[in-house]
Amino acid sequence: MNTLHVDLANRSYPIHIGPSLIEKSELYAPYLDGRQVMIVTNETIAPLYLDALRRALSGWRHETVILPDGEEHKTLSLTEPIFDALLRGRFDRHCVLVALGGGVIGDVVGFAAAIYQRGVDFIQVPTTLLAQVDSSVGGKTGVNHPLGKNMIGAFHQPRLVLADTTTLNTLDDRQFSAGLAEVIKYGIIRDGDFFAWLETHMGALLARDPDSVAYAIEQSCRNKADLVALDEREAGSRALLNLGHTFGHAIETGVGYGAWLHGEAVAAGMAMAAFLSERLGWLCASDVERINALLIRAKLPIRAPASLSAERFLELMAVDKKVADGRIRLVLIKKIGASVVTGDYPATKLRETLEQCRDPA
Amino acid sequence: MNTLHVDLANRSYPIHIGPSLIEKSELYAPYLDGRQVMIVTNETIAPLYLDALRRALSGWRHETVILPDGEEHKTLSLTEPIFDALLRGRFDRHCVLVALGGGVIGDVVGFAAAIYQRGVDFIQVPTTLLAQVDSSVGGKTGVNHPLGKNMIGAFHQPRLVLADTTTLNTLDDRQFSAGLAEVIKYGIIRDGDFFAWLETHMGALLARDPDSVAYAIEQSCRNKADLVALDEREAGSRALLNLGHTFGHAIETGVGYGAWLHGEAVAAGMAMAAFLSERLGWLCASDVERINALLIRAKLPIRAPASLSAERFLELMAVDKKVADGRIRLVLIKKIGASVVTGDYPATKLRETLEQCRDPA
Repeated sequence: MNTLHVDLANRSYPIHIGPSLIEKSELYAPYLDGRQVMIVTNETIAPLYLDALRRALSGWRHETVILPDGEEHKTLSLTEPIFDALLRGRFDRHCVLVALGGGVIGDVVGFAAAIYQRGVDFIQVPTTLLAQVDSSVGGKTGVNHPLGKNMIGAFHQPRLVLADTTTLNTLDDRQFSAGLAEVIKYGIIRDGDFFAWLETHMGALLARDPDSVAYAIEQSCRNKADLVALDEREAGSRALLNLGHTFGHAIETGVGYGAWLHGEAVAAGMAMAAFLSERLGWLCASDVERINALLIRAKLPIRAPASLSAERFLELMAVDKKVADGRIRLVLIKKIGASVVTGDYPATKLRETLEQCRDPA
Repeated sequence: MNTLHVDLANRSYPIHIGPSLIEKSELYAPYLDGRQVMIVTNETIAPLYLDALRRALSGWRHETVILPDGEEHKTLSLTEPIFDALLRGRFDRHCVLVALGGGVIGDVVGFAAAIYQRGVDFIQVPTTLLAQVDSSVGGKTGVNHPLGKNMIGAFHQPRLVLADTTTLNTLDDRQFSAGLAEVIKYGIIRDGDFFAWLETHMGALLARDPDSVAYAIEQSCRNKADLVALDEREAGSRALLNLGHTFGHAIETGVGYGAWLHGEAVAAGMAMAAFLSERLGWLCASDVERINALLIRAKLPIRAPASLSAERFLELMAVDKKVADGRIRLVLIKKIGASVVTGDYPATKLRETLEQCRDPA
């Protein structure tokens, strides 16, 4: 087991990474004694890991809420069964929520913890690669609105994250690849060495070699934790984490939540950012080639769906929250391992990107 | 106009108190330039003050949302029309919400601001005495759940509060009295001099003498601001502000939201706290008498409704959020101007209080 500390003054917390961590009671113990515990998971994860988690927590009185699965359920109303269970069980403000599941569970349970009685503790047990390398670090929680992703939410840090690599063995290939999109992102935005390591280890990762997977998770979390520690509230450098996300959110909303996985949309978004960066003369053609090649090897898309016109794309991007005063700010790439946040590009180049980085109809 | 500064490190803000402040554009100016502005009010307040506010904000592009009026609407779903309007209008994370109305508007709009895009700015323009002396200070925002009041919420400080005393002229007597309950509370919990001032000025307050009303608001806000500055997150001394509230919330929930005004329930709750404090030998009979007399002069109830049995009362108190590990902690009174938070009293004395401080059936 490796442990990484996310350093956020009075809200610091450990991320433990390794096999079969769900089962280890002693990892939870410091956070549970004398408190009411509510496990929240979904109907897909419950049959796989709920029993193991409940056995690990058998020394503490706990209850369980099982939510429906899927990004399309990630709305404000998904918090209601959690609040109902907490209030029916008379959970007080010293209670702890345990989020067992992927990114949706982490985001929704973290958000419920942020606003239940104005804030209670929560523990993340992410069971997808995406959740382990992304939502487990940074404290962003929230839900979607029909008019935009993650529009309702709060910053709320977990007390503990357990990234149990064994859970990835039940992840289907498409979900695993979607997680790799965020892993590749860290390489592109700030860690050229890690990108090169990914180029030589993509085969091992796709074969789910345990050591390679654990290393990729740790490097991803370390990169994200560094950025978050610098900038918890996203005024500055943290925004680099949005590489591919403004494009990606537009794709997700445009095709309807759930049709594309988040990581798939981010992958296409990163390829689009690379395309635009090259058009601006910032990124060399060989780096664009390396980015596209690695995404393709990870079985990820590098183009937006044919159904999304450039018009509609721009409209969807404008509602995304990375907009300041109507100006679309994007993360663009200077070279592999170095990126910037900017609104300083000609609108025609963005439109060109939207038109050319689409699947043929 | 008097100005009080609520001192909370990087989240400090001014409260301006005086007549006709709504109309003064220059008070809003520092917080609005270059930003999208959304006014949120309700159907009762809109006909009275919305035009004046919109005139004051005519130099800035703004939109308006009008919500239904009443505590019974203060649920999570009341935030939805706000989010719909914000997203349809493409409000970004630099936008400002302006809450025009009483406590419900302040709580709901503040909460919506806390969770829209993980937190945007808001300005409070409270139009009831209760909102001016209570919810405008402290940053508590939130909504009710069918199983308990204010169970869903966030700490989120406004950038500016305008307590326009002219708005109190349209407040009905019952609402005005309900506001006086919280005013009297500050005297009881920590300011014996202010309590004595209230005893000599209750006639002037009920006659809405402008100077007396402004003084009462200022002293109330100052007392609350002092406690909040000491203890923003309510681990300690801030809990004194809950005098009467654990009893009061049980009354409000027990009779159904809206049947009793919040201030009325708090008044009865304070009289119950005084009764229990006397039974414990902590508070002298003459102080109990002064508290009851002042509440009665302010036209406030000092007993719980006959319909609430002691059993039901205890059940409702147990779900209230001031419970740590199943133990009901209460604010009790040592003397007028000095109070404590404690769970250290015999359960029989609490039951006695619940049985005896009720209206005869």
